[in-house]
Amino acid sequence: MRIGKYRAYSSTANLGPGFDVLGMALQAFYDEAEVRVSMNGEGKVKVRYVGPYSNQVSSFAGDCVAKRAALALLRRYRSDVDVNIVIWKGVPPGKGLGSSGASAALVVHALDDILDLGLRDEEKVLLAGEGEVASAGTPHYDNVAASLLGGLAIVSKSKTGIKVWSTKIRVMFVIAVPDVHTHHSKTKLMRSLIPDEVPLNAHVENSSYLATLLAGLLTGDLKLAGYGMSNDVIVTKARSPHVPCYAEALEAAIKAGAYGFTLSGAGPSTVALVDECSAGTVAKALEKAYSSCGVKAQVVITQVAGRPERLD
Amino acid sequence: MRIGKYRAYSSTANLGPGFDVLGMALQAFYDEAEVRVSMNGEGKVKVRYVGPYSNQVSSFAGDCVAKRAALALLRRYRSDVDVNIVIWKGVPPGKGLGSSGASAALVVHALDDILDLGLRDEEKVLLAGEGEVASAGTPHYDNVAASLLGGLAIVSKSKTGIKVWSTKIRVMFVIAVPDVHTHHSKTKLMRSLIPDEVPLNAHVENSSYLATLLAGLLTGDLKLAGYGMSNDVIVTKARSPHVPCYAEALEAAIKAGAYGFTLSGAGPSTVALVDECSAGTVAKALEKAYSSCGVKAQVVITQVAGRPERLD
Repeated sequence: MRIGKYRAYSSTANLGPGFDVLGMALQAFYDEAEVRVSMNGEGKVKVRYVGPYSNQVSSFAGDCVAKRAALALLRRYRSDVDVNIVIWKGVPPGKGLGSSGASAALVVHALDDILDLGLRDEEKVLLAGEGEVASAGTPHYDNVAASLLGGLAIVSKSKTGIKVWSTKIRVMFVIAVPDVHTHHSKTKLMRSLIPDEVPLNAHVENSSYLATLLAGLLTGDLKLAGYGMSNDVIVTKARSPHVPCYAEALEAAIKAGAYGFTLSGAGPSTVALVDECSAGTVAKALEKAYSSCGVKAQVVITQVAGRPERLD
Repeated sequence: MRIGKYRAYSSTANLGPGFDVLGMALQAFYDEAEVRVSMNGEGKVKVRYVGPYSNQVSSFAGDCVAKRAALALLRRYRSDVDVNIVIWKGVPPGKGLGSSGASAALVVHALDDILDLGLRDEEKVLLAGEGEVASAGTPHYDNVAASLLGGLAIVSKSKTGIKVWSTKIRVMFVIAVPDVHTHHSKTKLMRSLIPDEVPLNAHVENSSYLATLLAGLLTGDLKLAGYGMSNDVIVTKARSPHVPCYAEALEAAIKAGAYGFTLSGAGPSTVALVDECSAGTVAKALEKAYSSCGVKAQVVITQVAGRPERLD
């Protein structure tokens, strides 16, 4: 029997123009897992959820996410062990904070470590992404990559496979998590709002926002990063009108000194890029804005998180 | 009478997935100008071309480019002076090396300096871009931004205006300039090959290449940058089949150790990302590849250039 305790962090995907490409790991929320591996087994996986959001997991298919990822890993690398996982669910599901991605990343990271598999980052992201199919309908890797690799993560998926990259980055965000009813197939629904075809000039315009966002983040120019993050004429433009209080929160955050503001993943959470000086003011402004809309929201000042950690 | 001598450098636009967004100034070629300003005038501009490519300028409307940029600047800021400019044309026109952009940038930089206007980068790029309309049909700013700002330049054009940014960067390229007949409206022609609408998945895929290209360039990870640069499923994919010897040059460059390879602007020139160790080998491989195709090509190892310089 091998036993290990692990933690993996929440994440925000897209950051505006980086739809399905960018993810950022965030300390705001995390899942923890106690993993027990019986070394004589037959590839069986048991997952149980505890903690503040455990009762919401099943309605978002989150339990399938972790179990599928674990099954995919065992099938491929160690079908001779059984795994028993208890996940303390601390990332709220269905809020656009990479909740299912964090669970999938947690399980893959934990099993890779406890079984000494030494998997490459790409393999881990692919395995964790397989779990995500259960939640979003299609595999997408931005959240799992961020939770698995930490920092700012880039995912590139092409015919020849997947490439992932990440870097440590020191920025601060204010996350607002509205307490609104979210549909169990929210991500699917939010994806249906995005057009199948993009006019060339919108593609070019968004490319310029993505370029400035990355240049800003990687050179520490928050004003430039915020410009890129706040401007997205494709995905955020299509989704944000369907997100409660989005316009009001955007205006309030920018007025209070946020460098940039956008949807966190498919929403309904929002994410504001701030610095140490503006974080408190922006947080207060967001609380006020959501309250004016009649929406209860949890507002959290947070920093970028690293890779999952072993706790014991 | 005020007199000044200036130099502005060639550039490569797009770098694969950065269509109309990215430009990089290159030392490989440059234009020089002797500028004479009569302080009592009426906004008249005379431009004359000398040097190796002076006889090719008119067929690419390059003479209009510099003149238009100068006229736009005077009309706006100093209609009380006359300007006489002699441009030594060292950037070959019609090759995808930002020849007209270099002339426009040169003139705008020179007049800003000699008239002590203190123009902002955005204003200079806009003025130089007005000249570019003569050459490409629509204003695009990637080449002028690179020649004006030096280094790696990002241009973002939105409803609210234009934003430009640049950074110094230390990388090396091998440029191949094929001696093929290029049509005087080459850029227009090459633009007509690009689809008006882009499927969402191609937009996402290209976004991931742009993200890895920028992350690679800005963190010094040439392998990552080359991956992004070489992969472009929208513009390069549409154009490259129409460019003589492109496929052969690509294969040869990558085999010889180039990190990345793509079209320079609208072609026919190509650009390979290399380091000090691979530059010579890649240059030789490209010479051989073009020669095998029966295409004479000038192959140049070059570094990133800075802003225009005053020479006297």
